[in-house]
Amino acid sequence: MQQTSILLEFLGTIAFAITAVLAGTEKRIDLLSACVFALVTAVGGGTIRDVIINQPVFWATSQFYIWVPILCAVIAFFWKKIFIRKRVNKLLLYMDAVGISVFAIQAFEKVWNLDYGTPLGPIILGVITAIGGGIMRDVMAGRSNLLLSKELYAIPILIGCVAYAFILNYAPGYSLYSGLFCMVLIFAIRCIAIEERLTVPKWLIST
Amino acid sequence: MQQTSILLEFLGTIAFAITAVLAGTEKRIDLLSACVFALVTAVGGGTIRDVIINQPVFWATSQFYIWVPILCAVIAFFWKKIFIRKRVNKLLLYMDAVGISVFAIQAFEKVWNLDYGTPLGPIILGVITAIGGGIMRDVMAGRSNLLLSKELYAIPILIGCVAYAFILNYAPGYSLYSGLFCMVLIFAIRCIAIEERLTVPKWLIST
Amino acid sequence: MQQTSILLEFLGTIAFAITAVLAGTEKRIDLLSACVFALVTAVGGGTIRDVIINQPVFWATSQFYIWVPILCAVIAFFWKKIFIRKRVNKLLLYMDAVGISVFAIQAFEKVWNLDYGTPLGPIILGVITAIGGGIMRDVMAGRSNLLLSKELYAIPILIGCVAYAFILNYAPGYSLYSGLFCMVLIFAIRCIAIEERLTVPKWLIST
Repeated sequence: MQQTSILLEFLGTIAFAITAVLAGTEKRIDLLSACVFALVTAVGGGTIRDVIINQPVFWATSQFYIWVPILCAVIAFFWKKIFIRKRVNKLLLYMDAVGISVFAIQAFEKVWNLDYGTPLGPIILGVITAIGGGIMRDVMAGRSNLLLSKELYAIPILIGCVAYAFILNYAPGYSLYSGLFCMVLIFAIRCIAIEERLTVPKWLIST
Repeated sequence: MQQTSILLEFLGTIAFAITAVLAGTEKRIDLLSACVFALVTAVGGGTIRDVIINQPVFWATSQFYIWVPILCAVIAFFWKKIFIRKRVNKLLLYMDAVGISVFAIQAFEKVWNLDYGTPLGPIILGVITAIGGGIMRDVMAGRSNLLLSKELYAIPILIGCVAYAFILNYAPGYSLYSGLFCMVLIFAIRCIAIEERLTVPKWLIST
Repeated sequence: MQQTSILLEFLGTIAFAITAVLAGTEKRIDLLSACVFALVTAVGGGTIRDVIINQPVFWATSQFYIWVPILCAVIAFFWKKIFIRKRVNKLLLYMDAVGISVFAIQAFEKVWNLDYGTPLGPIILGVITAIGGGIMRDVMAGRSNLLLSKELYAIPILIGCVAYAFILNYAPGYSLYSGLFCMVLIFAIRCIAIEERLTVPKWLIST
């Protein structure tokens, strides 16, 4: 279980880093900026979470979370052509979906286990962990960010985190597999959104 | 006194949340983004303050500060028409003035009582608490922010916080009502600015 | 040594504050915004560092770091003409080079001595301390930032910090003067970049 979890994080981190470089290189950046964007995207959200809950920042003890984005950034920077191919790009989208599912639910569990601001704290910090880094990257790259797009991206994460809070509160007997279930829930909704090119329904968009 | 204070905070939080949604919906955002903008505006500044002074983030213990902005965001999102009416909009401006006065002075007191970086720390963190969330929202929404406008908004807050520091330092005998006095001072200057459409005087604007 | 170090910090802080005001006043800001931009540039990076490593923020205990930027901001605001003269402007560039060298290496040492995330932690936080404030300022001023420019600015800082980590790891016998050496290294590369108008080499820029 532990190992599967690390493998999924690994996939997610790779996707976060590579997509950050692809997004950044729209603007002709240098290699160091590419690494910065990759790092911000991969560890930015979790860093905000750890600073808020006053825990040691996760990448300080497991430097793996720094090396992987840097390595990915270098590869994506010099072999950009590979990653903009249609098939590879779609694979990245799915790996990114794995990433947001794993990061959100792991963050939720970390905050929930500390009983920090339960129940809203874990939900909010789960969402921040999954999307915070990407928003920071877009702000720093002068691009429009997730909050202004109609893509169905943050809503699945919110649904998964809220579902997890409900299960832990009202059906604690099912808590053993509920984390896994909510991870799959986020991933599944996000996959349907990718496959069917779903956007946020119209009645949920301001006029 | 305690209850009045909570009522004023309540008014301020509502104004912060609703104006955030109105500002965000210029760009056709979805409901979740509206909630994010409302939350960032209402609790963003105080969160930066608590992280800097290394205290538990205020909304983790009093979830009221999260529920109110979310509720307001939902209402403002679906009944936007009400809030863009001239009269209601002006009411919101005054409620916002209440908000910045209360948040700035409360933050000042929190930091001052911890003797954190006295005397500049309480002043700086008072200002950050009042305007930090709004700046974060505008940066995330890709809009021009307060720091680039000529509105008389941050200066009254600074005046109130500096006055408070002076009173506590040089006339501690008056400390009992000085917080209330400085709150009213910020509110009064801001109200005059709203009513008379005052802007920052020309000699204080760069050429 | 201690006194030289404070003098160099002083020069760097002045340069950071004044260039912040000059950058901000492209957009007709008021005096308070000028002070905010000066403060963010001068203490923003170090504040992020201290919050991440969970140490008291440096400017809370040494208010000198706040007064100097404010004073510089006021001077630069009213006597802008002096600082846009070619010679003075070049002097500022060199003082800024002093600043990034000192801030990066001091931050590196602070983090290294806490054994926080060694070896990547000190490198990353050294770079963040030197350039973080400037990026925050540009984001808040709605300007394009360092990460999107081709100037040779962040790379010298990275080289200096990586070199320091190598020396402390593989040649600890030379640790006494290695900090000074790496500071000079950053400064020297940056000076050559200024003098020769060097940009990031083409093969390090994305196509």
